[in-house]
Amino acid sequence: MLKLGMLGAGRIGRLHGDNIAKFIKGAKLEAIADPYLTEDAKQWAKEIGVTKVFTDPEEIFKDSDIDAVLICSSTDTHAEFLMKAAAAKKHIFCEKPIDLDTERIKKAIQAAQDANVKLMVGFVRRFDRDHSSVANIVKSGDMGKPHIVKITSRDPEAPPLSYVKISGGIFTDMMIHDFDMARFLAGSEVTEVTAIGEICITPEIKQYDDIDTAIVSLKFENGAIGVIDNSRAARYGYDQRVEVHCDKGTVLDDNNLENYVKISTKDGVTIGKPTWFFLQRYNDAFVKEVQDFVDAVVNNTEVPVGGHDGLMSVYIAQAAKRSLDEKRTVLLSELM
Amino acid sequence: MLKLGMLGAGRIGRLHGDNIAKFIKGAKLEAIADPYLTEDAKQWAKEIGVTKVFTDPEEIFKDSDIDAVLICSSTDTHAEFLMKAAAAKKHIFCEKPIDLDTERIKKAIQAAQDANVKLMVGFVRRFDRDHSSVANIVKSGDMGKPHIVKITSRDPEAPPLSYVKISGGIFTDMMIHDFDMARFLAGSEVTEVTAIGEICITPEIKQYDDIDTAIVSLKFENGAIGVIDNSRAARYGYDQRVEVHCDKGTVLDDNNLENYVKISTKDGVTIGKPTWFFLQRYNDAFVKEVQDFVDAVVNNTEVPVGGHDGLMSVYIAQAAKRSLDEKRTVLLSELM
Amino acid sequence: MLKLGMLGAGRIGRLHGDNIAKFIKGAKLEAIADPYLTEDAKQWAKEIGVTKVFTDPEEIFKDSDIDAVLICSSTDTHAEFLMKAAAAKKHIFCEKPIDLDTERIKKAIQAAQDANVKLMVGFVRRFDRDHSSVANIVKSGDMGKPHIVKITSRDPEAPPLSYVKISGGIFTDMMIHDFDMARFLAGSEVTEVTAIGEICITPEIKQYDDIDTAIVSLKFENGAIGVIDNSRAARYGYDQRVEVHCDKGTVLDDNNLENYVKISTKDGVTIGKPTWFFLQRYNDAFVKEVQDFVDAVVNNTEVPVGGHDGLMSVYIAQAAKRSLDEKRTVLLSELM
Amino acid sequence: MLKLGMLGAGRIGRLHGDNIAKFIKGAKLEAIADPYLTEDAKQWAKEIGVTKVFTDPEEIFKDSDIDAVLICSSTDTHAEFLMKAAAAKKHIFCEKPIDLDTERIKKAIQAAQDANVKLMVGFVRRFDRDHSSVANIVKSGDMGKPHIVKITSRDPEAPPLSYVKISGGIFTDMMIHDFDMARFLAGSEVTEVTAIGEICITPEIKQYDDIDTAIVSLKFENGAIGVIDNSRAARYGYDQRVEVHCDKGTVLDDNNLENYVKISTKDGVTIGKPTWFFLQRYNDAFVKEVQDFVDAVVNNTEVPVGGHDGLMSVYIAQAAKRSLDEKRTVLLSELM
Repeated sequence: MLKLGMLGAGRIGRLHGDNIAKFIKGAKLEAIADPYLTEDAKQWAKEIGVTKVFTDPEEIFKDSDIDAVLICSSTDTHAEFLMKAAAAKKHIFCEKPIDLDTERIKKAIQAAQDANVKLMVGFVRRFDRDHSSVANIVKSGDMGKPHIVKITSRDPEAPPLSYVKISGGIFTDMMIHDFDMARFLAGSEVTEVTAIGEICITPEIKQYDDIDTAIVSLKFENGAIGVIDNSRAARYGYDQRVEVHCDKGTVLDDNNLENYVKISTKDGVTIGKPTWFFLQRYNDAFVKEVQDFVDAVVNNTEVPVGGHDGLMSVYIAQAAKRSLDEKRTVLLSELM
Repeated sequence: MLKLGMLGAGRIGRLHGDNIAKFIKGAKLEAIADPYLTEDAKQWAKEIGVTKVFTDPEEIFKDSDIDAVLICSSTDTHAEFLMKAAAAKKHIFCEKPIDLDTERIKKAIQAAQDANVKLMVGFVRRFDRDHSSVANIVKSGDMGKPHIVKITSRDPEAPPLSYVKISGGIFTDMMIHDFDMARFLAGSEVTEVTAIGEICITPEIKQYDDIDTAIVSLKFENGAIGVIDNSRAARYGYDQRVEVHCDKGTVLDDNNLENYVKISTKDGVTIGKPTWFFLQRYNDAFVKEVQDFVDAVVNNTEVPVGGHDGLMSVYIAQAAKRSLDEKRTVLLSELM
Repeated sequence: MLKLGMLGAGRIGRLHGDNIAKFIKGAKLEAIADPYLTEDAKQWAKEIGVTKVFTDPEEIFKDSDIDAVLICSSTDTHAEFLMKAAAAKKHIFCEKPIDLDTERIKKAIQAAQDANVKLMVGFVRRFDRDHSSVANIVKSGDMGKPHIVKITSRDPEAPPLSYVKISGGIFTDMMIHDFDMARFLAGSEVTEVTAIGEICITPEIKQYDDIDTAIVSLKFENGAIGVIDNSRAARYGYDQRVEVHCDKGTVLDDNNLENYVKISTKDGVTIGKPTWFFLQRYNDAFVKEVQDFVDAVVNNTEVPVGGHDGLMSVYIAQAAKRSLDEKRTVLLSELM
Repeated sequence: MLKLGMLGAGRIGRLHGDNIAKFIKGAKLEAIADPYLTEDAKQWAKEIGVTKVFTDPEEIFKDSDIDAVLICSSTDTHAEFLMKAAAAKKHIFCEKPIDLDTERIKKAIQAAQDANVKLMVGFVRRFDRDHSSVANIVKSGDMGKPHIVKITSRDPEAPPLSYVKISGGIFTDMMIHDFDMARFLAGSEVTEVTAIGEICITPEIKQYDDIDTAIVSLKFENGAIGVIDNSRAARYGYDQRVEVHCDKGTVLDDNNLENYVKISTKDGVTIGKPTWFFLQRYNDAFVKEVQDFVDAVVNNTEVPVGGHDGLMSVYIAQAAKRSLDEKRTVLLSELM
């Protein structure tokens, strides 16, 4: 039974905590640390059977009972916690992104390597039933080589301005998931990035040098090309579709719907809407993600998403921003 | 916190037990009784935190800690356990059917009424997200009065002969779910039943006076008509579709699929298959069913599926068999 | 170039006439006869290049230029015209039904046989791209033997009372198409018929001993069973779906839609409605039907839908009415 | 009755000729001119009732009976014929593109304006039922302002090398349709173009400085952004999908399928493939296109696709090629 410690008991931490209590086999959440621990969080910890509850993260690192940590705190603390966990010889699951600074990411990855601990990064969409089916079919080679990778990724509603201000921008905050998905689907590294974008939804974000609607084109090492479109406000739900056109044809997935009911009247035919947001769409994927981490630690096998994946997606996000600003294709090699 | 006792730790019992441990709010599985308790079942009980494990069902009835029971034993024991639970003033969730004999069902219902305890029958499909959406839309009246109720219900593969032998026949064993669904969708009682059927899949079942492929037409009190088709072997999965044509149009649901991936090549276009069987399709419905029972007990409100529903579906099944044998429409009033 | 004469220049006659002028290869519409010939019809005949326009049908029969006739007049004249055409040694395409009286149908069929002329009956749905695909897949045997044949067939809006009065009833007027389709899909003769029905839409039709909503179950010689549901008022368009469940799985078609546009907003997702009525849905089928008739005459091959098909569908319709009245399964052999 | 003359009796000319003979109201094809007139073409002209058949195009221009011409000859002759037709005061329908040289296009447009004759350019996809529905919904304003325009456009199989050699490249030959569609859907002019591309299918086309797989991003005057992906070899048919994400949600269309039949077995579920190529997909659109031209001439109203549209799509194609070569965003204003 793997013993887990969690850093950060916010929305994503609680999501993982609930999943571990209900679904994860072979692991147990032993301790939680959060400097801003609320009474509500304490109550929650109790309900899911966690007895060690700290405000000081150091308590987790020094607890020799803990085999592995889940870093679910705010992004600016990820790299530091990661390095401390590595120093304490604990395996690491880290929410994305590891950091916004690629040098710090590299250091963190090196620390985990030096400590010989597993490091997995939380790109949850890779564990979605449908997206992973698409990736597996491409990977199998049955469709021939990939030619075009397409990702549609739209949040249901624009976030508040306060969020946008500290988000790091659409490429690092939102499209980073799609950059990782693009690499996953193509089975190849991105080499060139070309971005265009506009402010279509929230004019006020101009002050933060951000955009809310973006299209990014990609070239991959294996000769494929790709494109991602992002909108901060789909309105009809969480639009998450991927498509890979290959030598022998196309494999794609469509949105999961709230229901599969069809109503036909003289006024028209209506069907179910896409599920509303990531909690609805990627619920099962969050479980599978942590289970795969636990299994990789227990069986000492490779984690499915490693530090390198965390690093590359940040490079691509930075290249996208530069491309947008300079109105030109940016080679990833310019940044590395 | 409602304390539950479970009678029968077979497949369906364990399903409910796991669900209660993981998902049900406001209730706890306190005790399990099964005369044929295996070591495996004991281990399972331990894992989900049940400490009271008996071979004698009486231990459940006489345990004053237990507020309500879940009857998950074999069909021939349902009515007896139900009456004993009523005598012990425990609320009752009973798997379908209550019994195959309508007189015994009536007695059991009376016992629960006399004891003033809740009695809910496990017609799980009523709790399916899509079927219940269809029913709710019809019930809302927005589509006008229902005219035609259609149910397609096909198991993936034919059961073994040994199962068919003791099943009670396709109408009581399999289509009984659809009879309840038909009443649920029409929002009205069935008045007339007309059945046809054939042996298309397993010639050997002729010796048990059974069929494996059936079509049953229904008339309802509210003027609607309906039809159910059953096959014991769909082959492509669990085919579960319902449709209600109303005065203003049609509302229907399509199967839930294993995935929403589409593969297009020169050889054709393939999409996901329907989910394989009831564990895949009705997993969430099993949870909702028990939660609704628990809530009805805790809040002292009406259970969503009562003894009357359990009785009527057996009457319809009996009418269907008689119609099949006599090649004529059978009025439900002939049997009541 | 086959020379055609048309009897009846009403709606269906003009449909065929337009199609012949535009699309049919190897045939030419040479003459039209209609006792109630309007100025408008004369103008139309001129536009499509027909020079011989008569009010007396006899002109068609005695015109030695005419190789074949299309009987598009009112039902009560079909059998008579058919026999006269046969006597004049002209090949015959006859709109359905040949007659409502099975003895007269038999005589008409005999007349065509004795004259050694082709006789084709206009069951247009057999020529629909999707329905015929379903039938061909079943016929190929790739899916194994058919078990269940299902047909959904609903007109968009109820016809006027004046029409219902002279229609011959829902089974002969509307479901007769589905009876033929059922035989076509099953690839087998119907042996037993069981009908239920209600008046759900137009209470006034009670005076004509008719219903507007019906479900008819069928048994076939090859061991399959089937069911048809009819409604006179779908409201959302022309609902035309067929399905055959076979030993290895199911083959079905869905409605053709007005368009394949999807609109997604926070209020819901809408898709295209089914095409409105038979002119929209079966337009291409009407062309293919006449082309196949022309080809069969020119190449002296068998017509795809013969007099026997015309006869059987009327028998099934009569059995359905008797079943409805007598609340019992009716064997087709009782009528033959 | 408008009298039409056709220049060029090749594939596209015959398509229009057949359509005019069968479907077009208010016009008649009077004369055909083709310098390479085959016996086969003469036979065809006879069959569709065209009596004036020339090898010298001048015969058309000087024939005072002819009201309007359809220029269906090879691209290099379009501008010349267009100017001659204008000089002869004949209205003009010209297949796309008018020319590959924007200066010549401008001169041709000017000639038509000076002569006060209609000039329509054959961007047939605008007349597709589904694409035009999408455009109309966007135009209505019901969905709010457009944010993202997406076009998927893939031919079924790569053309022969001999074709690629003289095609003018993927942007001018193939994606030009999509550039026009993008302007049509956005309801706005393109201002910036960014292209990436690869050779994924036919390595030999490298010698012609061409690519076979391309993604082009666009910015529009109204603040929308867009993206088009092209592949010369979809394999599964003609993939033609458009999508516009707007302020209130998304409107998109899916491919028209060969049929709407679904086959479900244990091995999987298959549905119909997209229609094979433009003759199948855009057949009705070709008819509507010419009918709209005829109506605009007869009623003296504006043609739906004018010379300006023909010019802009060539500018965008040129910008795309420059962007591909220079790895940067190209402003359309740089070219104008």
